[in-house]
Amino acid sequence: MSHDPAKTARIDFEPAGVEVQTIPGESILDSARRAKVRIASACGGRGICKSCIIHFTGGDIPPPSANDRDFFSSSKLGRGWRRACQCSAIGDSRIHVPARARAESARMQVDGSEFWVQPEPLVEICTIELTRPSLAYPKADFDRLVDRLSMEKGSREWTIDPETLRSLPATLRRNHWLVQVVIFENEIIAIQPTQTRLVGLAVDLGTTNIGIFLVDLHSGNTIASTGIENPQGIYGSDVISRIGTAAQHPEKATEMHRLVVDAINQAATSMCEAHQLATDQIVDIVVAGNTAMHHLFTRLPVRGLGLAPFTPVITRAMDFKAREICLKSAPGARIHMIPNIAGFVGGDHTAMLIGISAHTESRTIVALDIGTNTEISLLHQGTITSLSCPSGPALEGGHISCGMRASTGAIEAISIAGDSLRIKTIGDTDPIGLCGSAVVDATAAFFLAGGLNHRGKIARDYRHTVLQ
Amino acid sequence: MSHDPAKTARIDFEPAGVEVQTIPGESILDSARRAKVRIASACGGRGICKSCIIHFTGGDIPPPSANDRDFFSSSKLGRGWRRACQCSAIGDSRIHVPARARAESARMQVDGSEFWVQPEPLVEICTIELTRPSLAYPKADFDRLVDRLSMEKGSREWTIDPETLRSLPATLRRNHWLVQVVIFENEIIAIQPTQTRLVGLAVDLGTTNIGIFLVDLHSGNTIASTGIENPQGIYGSDVISRIGTAAQHPEKATEMHRLVVDAINQAATSMCEAHQLATDQIVDIVVAGNTAMHHLFTRLPVRGLGLAPFTPVITRAMDFKAREICLKSAPGARIHMIPNIAGFVGGDHTAMLIGISAHTESRTIVALDIGTNTEISLLHQGTITSLSCPSGPALEGGHISCGMRASTGAIEAISIAGDSLRIKTIGDTDPIGLCGSAVVDATAAFFLAGGLNHRGKIARDYRHTVLQ
Repeated sequence: MSHDPAKTARIDFEPAGVEVQTIPGESILDSARRAKVRIASACGGRGICKSCIIHFTGGDIPPPSANDRDFFSSSKLGRGWRRACQCSAIGDSRIHVPARARAESARMQVDGSEFWVQPEPLVEICTIELTRPSLAYPKADFDRLVDRLSMEKGSREWTIDPETLRSLPATLRRNHWLVQVVIFENEIIAIQPTQTRLVGLAVDLGTTNIGIFLVDLHSGNTIASTGIENPQGIYGSDVISRIGTAAQHPEKATEMHRLVVDAINQAATSMCEAHQLATDQIVDIVVAGNTAMHHLFTRLPVRGLGLAPFTPVITRAMDFKAREICLKSAPGARIHMIPNIAGFVGGDHTAMLIGISAHTESRTIVALDIGTNTEISLLHQGTITSLSCPSGPALEGGHISCGMRASTGAIEAISIAGDSLRIKTIGDTDPIGLCGSAVVDATAAFFLAGGLNHRGKIARDYRHTVLQ
Repeated sequence: MSHDPAKTARIDFEPAGVEVQTIPGESILDSARRAKVRIASACGGRGICKSCIIHFTGGDIPPPSANDRDFFSSSKLGRGWRRACQCSAIGDSRIHVPARARAESARMQVDGSEFWVQPEPLVEICTIELTRPSLAYPKADFDRLVDRLSMEKGSREWTIDPETLRSLPATLRRNHWLVQVVIFENEIIAIQPTQTRLVGLAVDLGTTNIGIFLVDLHSGNTIASTGIENPQGIYGSDVISRIGTAAQHPEKATEMHRLVVDAINQAATSMCEAHQLATDQIVDIVVAGNTAMHHLFTRLPVRGLGLAPFTPVITRAMDFKAREICLKSAPGARIHMIPNIAGFVGGDHTAMLIGISAHTESRTIVALDIGTNTEISLLHQGTITSLSCPSGPALEGGHISCGMRASTGAIEAISIAGDSLRIKTIGDTDPIGLCGSAVVDATAAFFLAGGLNHRGKIARDYRHTVLQ
C-alpha cells in the first residue's frame, strides 16, 4: 500500500475510543488536540520532553523522525512507539495512548485559610428612587438619575458605562423607578433591582491550575471556590513553551486567551448557579497570575518575555472593562490585574506579598510560592528581594524519563526500609510513573541510604539491592 | 394560474434592471431594500405617505390592500398602481418604479464659512525617546514610557488604552524607541511615528444628510469635507418613522446604527486616502445630531422619544471609545457627543448655539436651524428659549400629493407673471414633482396673486387662469 502524506487519514485513539480525520501535515499531537483526546505535552510539542509518548497498534505506522530515532531504542521504534509531536499520520491507523501520557485531571486542592477581613470593595452601592417623567418634568433618564445621585453621594463628574446606559430606561421602568446603583469611582457600572446581592470574582491564574473564588462584597466571605486546570496546558505545561508558541503564532495566542476566558466563564457560571446568583451580579473582578499568564489573559504580546532581557509590556496595575475580553459580569464591571514585579515574578507573587502584609513586615522572612514556576522573596530590613525559577516541569515529570503529573497511578511517595523499596501510588493502583513528590522522596531516600554523591548524582560505586 | 403567497417569487425592478427573489410575506418595499433598489419612503413604510408609489407592468399583480383602495382611484388600481409598502408579490412580476419614487441622490451642498479659530484640541502630543531595554534596565515597556512621560508632562496617574498597549512593544521597536505619544486627559490613546499628522473628525449627523469634516488638529483648518445622504432614509425620511421602527424592532435599530457608522467610515476613509492620511491618524471625533440621530448612533433605546413626555435617555455630553461602535480611528480615539437639549432639540442645535457664542451674546437674536426638523432659539436678555417642529416631510414632499425631494426633475421655483405660471426644474428637465422650495414659492406666488386666504388656504371664490 502506498501512502500520500498530502491526503487525510483516519486515526482511532485508544482507549478513549475517539476517531478523527487528520489534516495533511498536522502532527498526531495536533490531531489529538482537535479531537479533544488529551495527550500530555509538557514542552508544548517542541520535541524536547518525553511526555507525549504514543503507541501505534495498527494501520499505517509512520517512519520514525530523526529526533525520535535518537530518543527511542530501535526495539521500541520497531514496536511502533513514537512521540505524538514528532510524527504525522501517513494512512489510517490505531494509536494507543499509554496511561502516563493521558493528560488526565491532576489531583487538585483549592484551599485557603479563610481569615476575616474587613471588606473594602472598590464599588459603592446606592439605592435611588426617582420621580416618573412627566410633561412638567421631562428630563432625560440619566440626567434625573445624576441629580438624585448627587444629592445622595455628593456632586461628582458622574459618567455611566455605555452598555449600562443602554439598559437604563428599561431597568428604571421595570423596577418602578426604584433601583440599586453600583458605582466605581465616578462611573455608574450597573443598575439593578434593589437588594440585589453584589459579588466579586477573584482569580488565581496559575500556569497549571486556576483557582476561582466568588466573594460576597457585603460580608467579604467566600461564597464558593473551585479549582480547574488551565486549559492552555495543551500548548505546553511550562510558560516558556506557551510564550514561544504565542510569540510565533498570534492566532494561537488568541486561542490561549479564549481558552482561559471560557474556562473562567464556565466555572463562574456554575458557581453562580449553585448559589442562585446571576453572572451580572459580579460587579468587580481581580486577577493575579505570573507575567506570562497576565499577558496572555489581557491579550498583550508575550514575545518580550521569551527573549533576554525578558521585558514585560507592563508591570503596573491594569484596569479594564470585563466585557472587552468577554468575561461574564455586570455590563460595566472592571477587571483589576494585580501588578507584576518583573518578567518572571508576576502578580501572583505580588498578591502573596500583599496577603502577608510584606510592606509592613519587620521580621526577616523567606516567602515561597511553589508552582509550575517558583518565586521566592526575602524580606529583610524593609527590602524585598525576589527571584524565580522553573519548578513545574521537574516536579510534574516534564523532563524526567519516567515522570508524570500527580494523577491516578502516579507514584507519590518512595522510601527505602532495609532492603525493600516502598512505594505509594495515587488511587492505590498499579504504578505508571513518578510525580513530583516521588522525585523528592527518591532523592531523599537514596541520600539517606548513602547512594547520592555531593552533586546529587548516584555514586558510581554504590550498590544496593533496591537499585539493581 | 394559482398563487401561493407562502412561496417566493421573482421581481424585475425597472428601470434599474435589478432582479430579486422575494421572501414570503415581505413587502415590495422590503424586497427593494434588500435588492438595493432605492424607492422613496418618507414615512418608512407605515402606509401614511405617498412616496413609494410603484407600477406593476407585468406578471402577477397583487390585489390592492384596503388601504390602497382608499388611496388610489379604481382606474389607477386597475392599471396596476400600488404603494410598495402596502403589497407583497404573489408571483413573478415586473415593477416599474416611476421617477418621483426613485430615491435618487438629492442635491446637496456642504458649505461652511471657514472662519479662523485658535485650535484647542482635546488631545495632547508628546515626542518621546526611550532607552533600549537591557539586562541592567529590563523595565517593562509601558513603565519606561510613563517614567519618561512624567518627566516631559509632569506626574499624572497615567493609563493607556488596552488596544494601544497591545501595539506598544512592536511600535517602539519599529520606530527605534522614538515615538509620538497622543494623550487624552491622563490616558495614552495612540503611539505613532514622530511627525505623524494628527486629524480630527467632525460629523454633523442630520436626519437626511450627514456632513463630515476632516480637520487638522495642529492648524485647525478643514482638510476636506463631504456631504452624504443618511442611509437610514430607507427607514423613513422623518425621525418619527425611524423612532417607531427602531422601538418596535431592535434588530432594525441595530441596522440603522450600522448603516450610519458604515457610511461615515466609508466617507472618512476616502477623504483620508485623498490626503495621504491613514484612518488611525484620526485621534478625536465630535458628533452633533438631533436627539433621535444621537440615540441611534450611540445605540441608545429611542422608545422614550416616540411617546409623551418624549424623554431622552441622556442629554448630557457623552464620551466613549470610537472602537466600541467600530468607527475607524486611532485605537484609543474617543467620540464626543455634543449634549442634547431635549427630546426634539438635539446636539446639532447645541452646536449651532456654541457656534454663534450664544452664551456670551447680549443682543436679542432668533437662530434657526432648518432641516428635516427645524429648531428655533430665541436669545433674549441672557435666556435661551428653544422649540422644534418637523419641517422636512413638508419641504421634501413626504406628505404633499405631488411632492418629491430636490433631485433631477423636481420643480424648484414657481412664479406667476401675468397669466402664465413659470416653473424651473432641477437639471432643466421635464417636471416630475414639487420639492420644498417650490412649495414655498407656490405659496408666495398664490399669495401675491391674491389667491390665498388668511389661513393659507386657496380662497373659495378665487379664479385665475393658471389655477384652472
